[in-house]
Amino acid sequence: MIIISIGNEILFGKTINTNASFIADQLYTIGIEVQKVITIADDKEQIFNTITTAFTETNLIVMTGGLGPTKDDITKQVICDYFHVGQKTDDTTLKEIQEMFQRRGFTLNEINRLQASIPEGAIALSNKNGTAPGIFMEKDQKILIAMPGVPFEMKAIVTHELIPLLKNRFQNHHIVIHKEIITAGIGESALSELIEPWELALPKHITLAYLPSPGKLMLRLTGRSDHGEEKILNEELEHQLTLLKKISKSYIISDQNQALEEVIGTLLKQKKGKMAVAESCTGGYLAHLITSVPGSSEYFEGGLVSYSNQIKKEILNVRELNLKKHGAVSEFVVNDMAINTMGLFDVDYTIAISGIAGPSGGTPEKPVGTVWIAVADPVKVIAEKFTFGSEGGREVVIQRAARAALYMFYKLLKGFYH
Amino acid sequence: MIIISIGNEILFGKTINTNASFIADQLYTIGIEVQKVITIADDKEQIFNTITTAFTETNLIVMTGGLGPTKDDITKQVICDYFHVGQKTDDTTLKEIQEMFQRRGFTLNEINRLQASIPEGAIALSNKNGTAPGIFMEKDQKILIAMPGVPFEMKAIVTHELIPLLKNRFQNHHIVIHKEIITAGIGESALSELIEPWELALPKHITLAYLPSPGKLMLRLTGRSDHGEEKILNEELEHQLTLLKKISKSYIISDQNQALEEVIGTLLKQKKGKMAVAESCTGGYLAHLITSVPGSSEYFEGGLVSYSNQIKKEILNVRELNLKKHGAVSEFVVNDMAINTMGLFDVDYTIAISGIAGPSGGTPEKPVGTVWIAVADPVKVIAEKFTFGSEGGREVVIQRAARAALYMFYKLLKGFYH
Repeated sequence: MIIISIGNEILFGKTINTNASFIADQLYTIGIEVQKVITIADDKEQIFNTITTAFTETNLIVMTGGLGPTKDDITKQVICDYFHVGQKTDDTTLKEIQEMFQRRGFTLNEINRLQASIPEGAIALSNKNGTAPGIFMEKDQKILIAMPGVPFEMKAIVTHELIPLLKNRFQNHHIVIHKEIITAGIGESALSELIEPWELALPKHITLAYLPSPGKLMLRLTGRSDHGEEKILNEELEHQLTLLKKISKSYIISDQNQALEEVIGTLLKQKKGKMAVAESCTGGYLAHLITSVPGSSEYFEGGLVSYSNQIKKEILNVRELNLKKHGAVSEFVVNDMAINTMGLFDVDYTIAISGIAGPSGGTPEKPVGTVWIAVADPVKVIAEKFTFGSEGGREVVIQRAARAALYMFYKLLKGFYH
Repeated sequence: MIIISIGNEILFGKTINTNASFIADQLYTIGIEVQKVITIADDKEQIFNTITTAFTETNLIVMTGGLGPTKDDITKQVICDYFHVGQKTDDTTLKEIQEMFQRRGFTLNEINRLQASIPEGAIALSNKNGTAPGIFMEKDQKILIAMPGVPFEMKAIVTHELIPLLKNRFQNHHIVIHKEIITAGIGESALSELIEPWELALPKHITLAYLPSPGKLMLRLTGRSDHGEEKILNEELEHQLTLLKKISKSYIISDQNQALEEVIGTLLKQKKGKMAVAESCTGGYLAHLITSVPGSSEYFEGGLVSYSNQIKKEILNVRELNLKKHGAVSEFVVNDMAINTMGLFDVDYTIAISGIAGPSGGTPEKPVGTVWIAVADPVKVIAEKFTFGSEGGREVVIQRAARAALYMFYKLLKGFYH
């Protein structure tokens, strides 16, 4: 399968192509692999040529972009030209657009009406978040799918329309099963070294992929079978997962596609615990990660960004003695922060971070990237020092510190600290 | 110019191709435009074929990926195969690698030594952040540039080596000048409508591009000339910018490539003001944006994430009467928050946010996406209500609310509220 992304803004370098990643990920879960992603400009001739060439390498193309109300003509026209067909009005789509306009109290104009026009012989893929439908065109044993480039419109079409449709078409004899686990607290290369003997011993029809994304590393086991024996394949995969879990210990945090902040939320809800955070160098990013989880208000009371020493002293009651003697970035200060945050927010679990995000503020003893983190529950406080370096810049230190703090907190909740 | 990104992890959909955006953006500033971005797998034959096809469409290819210590052979070998050359050891690179290993106290092995090997006739582009150098290969009027796929290694090579080299090569007769301004507080389509008459009147050799990225919208004016009259072109662009500024009023926040949080920092430093924030639904994201700016500790004292009503009352002294009578998401409560944050953090400027990020928590009167924001300086408090809708999900409400708050704060600092 080849993805063609249309959009000048991607070629200008100002928009990152997240659509292609989403489509690749979704289609991979039903066993369809992307062999190439091509990004091109909003240009009729280039679109036509790219489709023509791509169809010499694949019989399935997924396109995004160029289907908005104003640019509608280009992409649709190219599809019609390529397949030598005309356009027709899709009645269901027209009805959907009319209803959407009625709900919002607008009247339909000619441009809106044209949105319901699709190539002859194509199927319209209903767009719950916009007026331009997706297009599913099949002719001469070639399938071309076109969707709008607006991410939340495209995502709705992929999830609700495209995946069910393709699943039906492509999953008849060939069976593909995926098992995913999420790891944290260990880098890709260190994990790879740890599990290498297991990985080398995998049977040929089971493959492993490392799928890092910000803040989490997913391992995906893919099993394939041409005999349609789903149950056996499933058991094989489960067996391999059990072996993997044994060697990778505390680093496996979930066997669902969950980030650390979600896993922590689940654990806290089980314990009926309440938490709060105090952060300095991460400047609110830790609280942001935690509150990005829907329903986090059930266990997250709040956080303090104590950016200055003044605030650490006055609001958080950090001892002046500790600040003076050991400095703001020290075990003593993060311990004070973690303990006093409990009282300030009246909670039983806390996280505290103090460090040097850079680019300035480093010293020979405490270079940029030095971060102290403490986590506390009702009976103990655990502090650790990290050196994240300065190579990646300020943003990388902030992200790594917040992630490391969440992992320490995870270990605390799981009882891994004794 | 065509960019070829090599990487299975991009095709699996788990890594987003940010490298291509960075390269496109950087090369565009020296007048080189990307016509296509192609992402392919780490596969010798596919790389070879993609290079071959791409060179029928362009004479400049920039490749990333496949140059790490273990995968080194593939990409380098493909380049040698394509150009029919052998490999040679680059002495400068070998010396750099040796020095890097010496500094870290490691001994060099054969694999490390191989990193210094490049195709015959190529120039090594020094990699300050890793051992694999970039490769600049020119033969038969074709230029192929290959760099490692690790973003911070690639970025160092592009900035310090590639851009100066290409600038020298491609900017002799043809002149390209860019002028950029950053806008905020207005959507792309509303801005486009506002400035349409001006845009339509632009001379042919001056073009306008909208370059949206999270939280900011950049407008880039590009002027071209084949006569080498830089000064005249510059004056023309400045003239157009002056006209543009006149019609787009308060929406232009900077004529450098600065986000709102950076502009605010500059304004606060000028005023020698100190600020703090109190946020509810944005959960730390506002503080994170502000502290993502290097040097923000000069004016940012701290923030409170008051996620529960309890915390709003007890730490922030929000009146129970207001919480009960008007609810946490109300003008009364954000005003209380903004004013009391001043006292709590002892600052002269504050921002307060309270809203419903969703997916749950909405009511008919206050649906998901309803957000109240207040900004305060020593003499006034300004509150505004926003309805960001629920279509984009929780994350979109959080981002829009934080951005809207920064824009209100910008207007406050600039004296646009009376």
